[in-house]
Amino acid sequence: MGSEKSTPHTLKLRINDVIFGYESRAGRLFDVILICMIVISVTAVLLDSIESVRAVYGEFLFQLELLFTVLFTIEYLLRLYSTSNLRRYVFSFYGIIDLFSILPTYIAFLFPTAQYLIVIRIMRVLRIFRILKLFRYMGEANLLYSALIGARRKILVFLFSVLTLIIIFGALMFIIEGPENGFTSIPESIYWAIVTITTVGYGDISPNTPLGQFVAGLAMICGYAIIAVPTGIIGAELMAEVQQRNRRTRNDRECVSCKAKDHDLDARFCKICGNRIHQA
Amino acid sequence: MGSEKSTPHTLKLRINDVIFGYESRAGRLFDVILICMIVISVTAVLLDSIESVRAVYGEFLFQLELLFTVLFTIEYLLRLYSTSNLRRYVFSFYGIIDLFSILPTYIAFLFPTAQYLIVIRIMRVLRIFRILKLFRYMGEANLLYSALIGARRKILVFLFSVLTLIIIFGALMFIIEGPENGFTSIPESIYWAIVTITTVGYGDISPNTPLGQFVAGLAMICGYAIIAVPTGIIGAELMAEVQQRNRRTRNDRECVSCKAKDHDLDARFCKICGNRIHQA
Amino acid sequence: MGSEKSTPHTLKLRINDVIFGYESRAGRLFDVILICMIVISVTAVLLDSIESVRAVYGEFLFQLELLFTVLFTIEYLLRLYSTSNLRRYVFSFYGIIDLFSILPTYIAFLFPTAQYLIVIRIMRVLRIFRILKLFRYMGEANLLYSALIGARRKILVFLFSVLTLIIIFGALMFIIEGPENGFTSIPESIYWAIVTITTVGYGDISPNTPLGQFVAGLAMICGYAIIAVPTGIIGAELMAEVQQRNRRTRNDRECVSCKAKDHDLDARFCKICGNRIHQA
Amino acid sequence: MGSEKSTPHTLKLRINDVIFGYESRAGRLFDVILICMIVISVTAVLLDSIESVRAVYGEFLFQLELLFTVLFTIEYLLRLYSTSNLRRYVFSFYGIIDLFSILPTYIAFLFPTAQYLIVIRIMRVLRIFRILKLFRYMGEANLLYSALIGARRKILVFLFSVLTLIIIFGALMFIIEGPENGFTSIPESIYWAIVTITTVGYGDISPNTPLGQFVAGLAMICGYAIIAVPTGIIGAELMAEVQQRNRRTRNDRECVSCKAKDHDLDARFCKICGNRIHQA
Repeated sequence: MGSEKSTPHTLKLRINDVIFGYESRAGRLFDVILICMIVISVTAVLLDSIESVRAVYGEFLFQLELLFTVLFTIEYLLRLYSTSNLRRYVFSFYGIIDLFSILPTYIAFLFPTAQYLIVIRIMRVLRIFRILKLFRYMGEANLLYSALIGARRKILVFLFSVLTLIIIFGALMFIIEGPENGFTSIPESIYWAIVTITTVGYGDISPNTPLGQFVAGLAMICGYAIIAVPTGIIGAELMAEVQQRNRRTRNDRECVSCKAKDHDLDARFCKICGNRIHQA
Repeated sequence: MGSEKSTPHTLKLRINDVIFGYESRAGRLFDVILICMIVISVTAVLLDSIESVRAVYGEFLFQLELLFTVLFTIEYLLRLYSTSNLRRYVFSFYGIIDLFSILPTYIAFLFPTAQYLIVIRIMRVLRIFRILKLFRYMGEANLLYSALIGARRKILVFLFSVLTLIIIFGALMFIIEGPENGFTSIPESIYWAIVTITTVGYGDISPNTPLGQFVAGLAMICGYAIIAVPTGIIGAELMAEVQQRNRRTRNDRECVSCKAKDHDLDARFCKICGNRIHQA
Repeated sequence: MGSEKSTPHTLKLRINDVIFGYESRAGRLFDVILICMIVISVTAVLLDSIESVRAVYGEFLFQLELLFTVLFTIEYLLRLYSTSNLRRYVFSFYGIIDLFSILPTYIAFLFPTAQYLIVIRIMRVLRIFRILKLFRYMGEANLLYSALIGARRKILVFLFSVLTLIIIFGALMFIIEGPENGFTSIPESIYWAIVTITTVGYGDISPNTPLGQFVAGLAMICGYAIIAVPTGIIGAELMAEVQQRNRRTRNDRECVSCKAKDHDLDARFCKICGNRIHQA
Repeated sequence: MGSEKSTPHTLKLRINDVIFGYESRAGRLFDVILICMIVISVTAVLLDSIESVRAVYGEFLFQLELLFTVLFTIEYLLRLYSTSNLRRYVFSFYGIIDLFSILPTYIAFLFPTAQYLIVIRIMRVLRIFRILKLFRYMGEANLLYSALIGARRKILVFLFSVLTLIIIFGALMFIIEGPENGFTSIPESIYWAIVTITTVGYGDISPNTPLGQFVAGLAMICGYAIIAVPTGIIGAELMAEVQQRNRRTRNDRECVSCKAKDHDLDARFCKICGNRIHQA
């Protein structure tokens, strides 16, 4: 970030402050307006997908869509211009989302075939990714994020073992129930197993034979019991983080000689310099 | 509360004691009677909504409804009269519920058109908000409440990210499955996504294409895994509170000689310097 | 228990040892046989309820049922005879279950009308309560039990607030969807709300109007989020108990002067007598 | 393992290193290739179960199946040859899975009747057990595993009490709803109770009478509330393990002068006596 930084232009820095920054008044205002526009744009896409609404307001929503795409494109170009590290921004999570949320409308222009246009119009809904930007503004998300990162390997192991269980139960039910009871293939049975083990339970496919119902019951109890595992993982991770923070905050006592903090409550001597903490 | 307080009337104070207080015998009796009346009133509304019951007991239930509304109105007026801070009560959570639980019946009188009356009669069910009053009497609720307040920002971040996920999955399924498979619009697909990710799974709308079933499976596993997040948040928050309380009880005692803290509750001598903690 | 105890008969004490005790060889053998008989008896009731099985083995199962009832009755009488405290046993949890698990068959004899007999035969399934006896033999259950007892008030508050939520959502959906969409009465809507908020989601009743689907979505997200509360409560309770136990066990160090235990890891002086714990 | 070890052959040791080991380059390459082959093989079985795919690629998939079975058989024989402890490997978890994942295809050859062949072809899906091998490579799984082992008795008590609840609710609903509402027998009702209490909720069987819906509502709330128990158990277990690990890292350092423990990781001086902990 530091090495590739170009010579500071006043304009570029101001734009960077407004678009990327949160400290200045203008920066905060920009963010609020951006969020409002994202919400309006996503709402327009949602309304456009309703048959009866499109019949009446289709033209207006199309114009609105165009307007927002132009505005978001200008915003994207300004981001590209003002960022201190182009490569980092373009390939960052938000850089990719920023690009993907303006692309669909342009693709619809390059290939103006009617058939394609319909597909692309539907693709515009990917614009909703833009709403993910809202995340950026929430500080508290970091604690959750770091807890999930800390638990990512345990969660992967858990997800993998659930997948194994799902495949096994899916195959078993295909053998037991068979195509005549709606379990037409193992992939279809695996879909059923996911629906069952996650306790969603649509009921579009359900076992009919006694043995099938018995195995399905086992699958349900499995799914019901193992949900406890990721919950325990994340709970323990969050708890450990909260405790670590508490340990830090409750030890505000400062050593008078070396200014070291983070002493235990029963500490009488500084753990860093060995002097008494309180002269009392 | 102190500044706006009028000169103390004996009657006003007594009513306040009975209606708002819990300490006196009369206050407790009033609360018990009030709870009984609320339960009876809500039950009457429930019964009135059953076609066959209303055909036979409709008139009686209407009279009962009127009687309770009159009684609750008198109670509300007494609360307004006896409260030490009118504005605070009226705009408090319970003040608003108290008002809303008597309003519907009166609105039915002001606009006596038959058509309106039916709508208003149904609105009377809002009276059930009154049952929320029961909460006031439960002390343990406070711990839960403060844990939820402490976790409110994390829960908001979580709810927001779940909503984003729901919108994305809804839009994806609209593209994949389309109106011919029941996903008539993106809002309808979002409804499906909520039903799926929360693992409710009515089955009124369910995917039919293999790709749709695959994406639906992903949505289910997502919903199944992320339920762990709020659970972990609240568990960690409650746990931290329980620990803090334990720690407080434990740390309140200080050794007079060496100022060491964190002694067990049954400790008579300082664990660090060996002197008596309490000279008693 | 001590005061009402009759003079010790050798027979009575031996029976008590076998029936109530776990220490002797005979006592353990009795328990194992009892559990086997309970499982066989419950299985027989389950099989008897299947139409095709009853048609063939109905007579045999009826005889088996009679045999088990006689045996369990003898066992119950022996328990009454040998218990050291009759009143305590009869009104204990297991005393009541022991009685209820033999009563149904006898009631069928006293009122021998065919019509009644069928009702009573179905009532025999209450015998399954007997299986609850198995619980008695599991020690680990106590930790769970005490955690649930410790959390009982928080759980009650939680259950009550969920019930309030269910009633409110039920009434709201009755107003919004109405009888023409399957929400025939408020109790029926409350049933729907339970099905939805607990994320069971049968789909026998489901919202059809956009507003109904929106409110249903809110109910689902509520149900999905608040499941975290009891989990957090019980998790925190269990965690606190585990920690308390750890604190106790990891402090096995004993004071040489006064034999007091349960010292902190950093304690140098006995918290009870003030002497050094380790002379080292 | 040590006592039964035969005299070391260079070839045998090398094979053992490649097949069982993870340290050498060849060993890691072997594992990666094995995992790829397992995934391809399972995918082939999944595709083969789809009617339309088998019609076109059935012959090719059959050949692939044969090839993989031969390869996996060679691998199994090499494992038998190179293992340092034959008995331990054959009866280990993975030894049994290794055998079961090649057996089905051979059984299809020994009994070449067409009818049997179909059954056996379906049995081949048991090969998916092979995917469980993937587990071996994940280190993080151990923490989860030991937490589950630590909580196994509590989980058993929980599962048993859930089963009791399921049988009781199943029997109750059979009495209340009866065969005319789809509750054809107690086993069928128990299947319904599992579907309901685990919050799966297919809706293939659902209560119709008001009393039945009331009892079903109770069952749902039960299921909704008790899911908190295993979650709490596993969360507490994981949390205790994380804490124990933290405590161990923290407590390993001892002050040489006063023997105080529990120093922070960055502490250079004893917090109790002020002397250097490490003379380094």
